[in-house]
Amino acid sequence: MDDKIVTLSIGGGGRQTANFIKDIILKYFDNDILNNLGDSSHIETSTNSAFTTDSFVIRPEFFSGGDIGKLSICGTVNDLAVSGAEPLYISFALVVVEGYSYEKLEKIVQSAAHEAKKAGVKVVCGDTKVVERGGIDGVIINTCGLGKVIKNLNDFSAVKAGDKVIVTSDIARHGMAVMLERGQFGFAGNIESDCACLNNMMKAVYPYNIKFGRDATRGGLAAVLNEIAEQSGKGFLIDEEKIPLRQDVAELCDTLGFDPLSVANEGAAVIICGADDCEKVLAVLKSVKEGERAAVIGEVTGDNKVILKTISGGKRHIDLPPGELLPRIC
Amino acid sequence: MDDKIVTLSIGGGGRQTANFIKDIILKYFDNDILNNLGDSSHIETSTNSAFTTDSFVIRPEFFSGGDIGKLSICGTVNDLAVSGAEPLYISFALVVVEGYSYEKLEKIVQSAAHEAKKAGVKVVCGDTKVVERGGIDGVIINTCGLGKVIKNLNDFSAVKAGDKVIVTSDIARHGMAVMLERGQFGFAGNIESDCACLNNMMKAVYPYNIKFGRDATRGGLAAVLNEIAEQSGKGFLIDEEKIPLRQDVAELCDTLGFDPLSVANEGAAVIICGADDCEKVLAVLKSVKEGERAAVIGEVTGDNKVILKTISGGKRHIDLPPGELLPRIC
Repeated sequence: MDDKIVTLSIGGGGRQTANFIKDIILKYFDNDILNNLGDSSHIETSTNSAFTTDSFVIRPEFFSGGDIGKLSICGTVNDLAVSGAEPLYISFALVVVEGYSYEKLEKIVQSAAHEAKKAGVKVVCGDTKVVERGGIDGVIINTCGLGKVIKNLNDFSAVKAGDKVIVTSDIARHGMAVMLERGQFGFAGNIESDCACLNNMMKAVYPYNIKFGRDATRGGLAAVLNEIAEQSGKGFLIDEEKIPLRQDVAELCDTLGFDPLSVANEGAAVIICGADDCEKVLAVLKSVKEGERAAVIGEVTGDNKVILKTISGGKRHIDLPPGELLPRIC
Repeated sequence: MDDKIVTLSIGGGGRQTANFIKDIILKYFDNDILNNLGDSSHIETSTNSAFTTDSFVIRPEFFSGGDIGKLSICGTVNDLAVSGAEPLYISFALVVVEGYSYEKLEKIVQSAAHEAKKAGVKVVCGDTKVVERGGIDGVIINTCGLGKVIKNLNDFSAVKAGDKVIVTSDIARHGMAVMLERGQFGFAGNIESDCACLNNMMKAVYPYNIKFGRDATRGGLAAVLNEIAEQSGKGFLIDEEKIPLRQDVAELCDTLGFDPLSVANEGAAVIICGADDCEKVLAVLKSVKEGERAAVIGEVTGDNKVILKTISGGKRHIDLPPGELLPRIC
């Protein structure tokens, strides 16, 4: 058992920093651009790029279906992919508390590197800071992503009444998996986070008449639908019955009083699609592993409200989640 | 006195997040690209870009000469500028502890926005996470920078024996200013951090025969010289007498037992310059505010050692600082 720990000097800019970069960072993220260790990395870009950032503060760092390293790659890859860009480059910045297990930190870096390789993105720049005990409670990661715009799926004005709404995965698994991992409610279960990179799935549907994309992370499906409604001036009529939701996840949400529509996902995108191409898009999504549970869940309306047609036949507004349901979920 | 505090819900992805983004983030960083609030921001880039990331964990967040907001822009702008790129776009990711003063947070964002405007860079994407009390001890910021490569100052192989070494500012002010701000050694003094954006200064010398650039942040001048020596296979002979160092900073370092060569800067770059153009480069640097104390401090040698010719006439090796001199200095 290796009980080596992270020391302040790893983040100090001196000899131990140089060793850490060689032993851990370059070992896993090895590529020509990163290996040059410049103050900035010089890269080839297209004239239309997409740029995004996300910090990851999730606790615990390891959970069923992933860890903070994997998540830090998926989250940023997905922000690029759902907005219509092919992810190419990632930055990786660690903030670690002094005394943290070196072995765990290495696992996190290894997991991030594995996911980046799978997604076909290069980690080209990074930073490591170590803070004293009490400064933070573990590891925080920030990643930025840079990609090539293939299609503009960021344009709220493209959303029109009559368009169809697709969700690409069953919902609420990430939030519930992390909640179970914490054990704070005394429940056990076998729910895996949906944490996954969606760039290959999204690439498969770029050729079709899709108009807008966004991944349903913090705030879940409810937040995404409300954000799109607010910015586009359009509304949604969503059919509860059609929302993919695993029985065990639904039951756990019900028991704990969570609305699954407001629970975080890390591998589920909302795609607004022209009605004409909807069945084709759905078929393509379902042919890709990350999209096999995709479903058409409703349509865009003209009246700027987000309405759920419930299983029992009633209708209710879906609002933006009012507060923080599950802190540190991503 | 406004004693509003930061709540978990600001980072939750719901209504309060949306309000915070409108009230604070868009208020200060207002620009067309950011205002679109996409999952990623679509931007125009050149085919040769430079990409860099840095996390800022400095304590205290406010210090003489700057704050964590200003620093988060300068640090990233400088990483681009010293490596030969014109900084264009910045990402801005906040991690804040629940209960933090809303007024202080607004000041930090305002200060970052002010500095970005001054430097001519656009903040085009961001993220905000709030963690519960005890999760972190204040504010952490990550910024990534994206720029257009004008000149490759990242290429260690361009460094040749006989080249001159310029430092663009007096050294050790940032580290000593932060140390005084903490008050931990019981000293008082009037030392301001050198924290500044160097992109306009660097741009002024790109047309000349400069070969390599790096800013002397964590680990100070000693770390930068050793990194360049290690990667280039060359060495340095540095003349202690020529290193710009304010008398009061020198005395404070001496009293506390710090080697000023290893103390962090946030507005001092090391430039390796062809001997033929050295006087011209120095004159141009000195004509710009951020470079007015620039000096030629030595030259590149062939023997892979970093040697200091001391004021007393002796010679000693300058090593990479062995550990963390001043934690959380940036």
